[in-house]
Amino acid sequence: MNKKLVIALGGNALGNTSEEQLQLVKKAAKNIVDLIEEGYTVIVGHGNGPQVGMINSAMEYAATHGATKTPMPFPECGAMSQGYIGYHLEQSIKQELDDRNIDKEVACIVTEVIINKDDPAFVHPTKPIGLFYNKTEADQIAQEKGYHFIEDSGRGYRRVVPSPEPQEIVELEAIKQLVEHEDVVITVGGGGIPVIQTDDGLQGIDAVIDKDKSSAKLAQDIHAKMLIILTAVEQVFIHYNQPNQKALTSITVDEAKRYIQEGHFAPGSMLPKVEACIQFVENTPDGTAIITSLEKAKEALQGKTGTYIHA
Amino acid sequence: MNKKLVIALGGNALGNTSEEQLQLVKKAAKNIVDLIEEGYTVIVGHGNGPQVGMINSAMEYAATHGATKTPMPFPECGAMSQGYIGYHLEQSIKQELDDRNIDKEVACIVTEVIINKDDPAFVHPTKPIGLFYNKTEADQIAQEKGYHFIEDSGRGYRRVVPSPEPQEIVELEAIKQLVEHEDVVITVGGGGIPVIQTDDGLQGIDAVIDKDKSSAKLAQDIHAKMLIILTAVEQVFIHYNQPNQKALTSITVDEAKRYIQEGHFAPGSMLPKVEACIQFVENTPDGTAIITSLEKAKEALQGKTGTYIHA
Repeated sequence: MNKKLVIALGGNALGNTSEEQLQLVKKAAKNIVDLIEEGYTVIVGHGNGPQVGMINSAMEYAATHGATKTPMPFPECGAMSQGYIGYHLEQSIKQELDDRNIDKEVACIVTEVIINKDDPAFVHPTKPIGLFYNKTEADQIAQEKGYHFIEDSGRGYRRVVPSPEPQEIVELEAIKQLVEHEDVVITVGGGGIPVIQTDDGLQGIDAVIDKDKSSAKLAQDIHAKMLIILTAVEQVFIHYNQPNQKALTSITVDEAKRYIQEGHFAPGSMLPKVEACIQFVENTPDGTAIITSLEKAKEALQGKTGTYIHA
Repeated sequence: MNKKLVIALGGNALGNTSEEQLQLVKKAAKNIVDLIEEGYTVIVGHGNGPQVGMINSAMEYAATHGATKTPMPFPECGAMSQGYIGYHLEQSIKQELDDRNIDKEVACIVTEVIINKDDPAFVHPTKPIGLFYNKTEADQIAQEKGYHFIEDSGRGYRRVVPSPEPQEIVELEAIKQLVEHEDVVITVGGGGIPVIQTDDGLQGIDAVIDKDKSSAKLAQDIHAKMLIILTAVEQVFIHYNQPNQKALTSITVDEAKRYIQEGHFAPGSMLPKVEACIQFVENTPDGTAIITSLEKAKEALQGKTGTYIHA
């Protein structure tokens, strides 16, 4: 029986400092092991927005002020965030398993994800990363390095990078091998380290891959039974924040597409999550996707809450 | 036939910036794939001295100057360095395999290593990490945080942490699973993220585990046939830098111990490497250890150079 379940955990739910993150990950580990107790082999994809932002800012700041030799490229910062978050997840999930006498291995694999260098996302970079600058500084860096900047909510200017679609998970076979052993695998952290194909092989590139889309791609590639995308709300709504707001319990892919066309889901928020679910379900016979909150994940898996998206 | 080979690669050979590291890792990948072409399943342990130092310094500097919220604890910096170095190794080794039409997976596992909190190393911390401070600053931090500082070669004061012995590799079973599939596994980066057992489970601790000793422990645990410790020289010498200097070609564990007693090997340099080899060979029936340089690794494996240490 196929009981493979991919969880996509939000980077925003991991806190802003190491101490905070460890506390939050310990809590998340309980929710994750609840799902393992339901009989699933769990693969954890996770976000890294605040974490890679912090790492990138620290590296940029230290280099700019001469404390280190050169700034760290963004893909390398992503790799660092995978180590940083993966370590806390490994430690906390293993401990929770031990506490419940469940004999299972936990391993985080540093994961690259190939994107298409002709992805239309490169035309309009949208994801802000790194430090805030004033206009003069931003203009100067833009000229020197060819970076794109946007004014970010009155707080100053920030570099933006593209958010292309995940095409291929480089370490997929190793992930599959561990999943076959029913290990808990932590992977595609922050959507994966973004790389492109070049004549000289893979090469890191400054971009942010949506972690829900990478998790959906992974779920599809390993033929998972279930994809759970965790977010701040228990269910997906239509007419969100309006008097006729309505929670969705179970919808088909066609219904999901119709709601998208009607503009029910916010871009950069619920929209990519619903799109990721559609992508998984359309490419996976018998696959089901759920959108819910971390706290309600177990109940959602039992069919008591969450929004199910199915063929 | 057991053809498992653990390589311990020096962090000093990886360069001081991301650009430098990627170039050096691409070169190292050629030497590593040479060993795979000899028919071995290769597991790569690696150092992280300069890299974790750079990460820790950048994080400390950014936090001290208010660019980030709090400094990053040292074990988390180690985890970051595993992601950073592991990413470059994964990418470069995979590319070199592809170039030679060798169908093999490459995966880096974020790896914790348990140390004993009563290890005598905690009495006399010896490993310098992080930024340089003047005496006043160092005294103040020492008082605030209980850190130990030493004066480092006239360049200022630096924090020192202990270097305890590796006791147990937490992610060992997952590593074994990938090794069974004959993948190239990258692990115990920087000697592993140091953790201790507490009543609440594992907990990161500020320490540096010798990467050669962790690699030896790994080689022993997976019953490797061969451990190759890579260093700056092609062979181990007795009477090093003296007129009667002599390269060692093949020695027994007993001979190695005698040379240690006679003081032939420098502490913090060749001594821990020879000790790591002894530990592996004594605990591994038919295991052989080699000390040589990265460039000469293939020739050493063919018996043409290097220093062999055997039972």
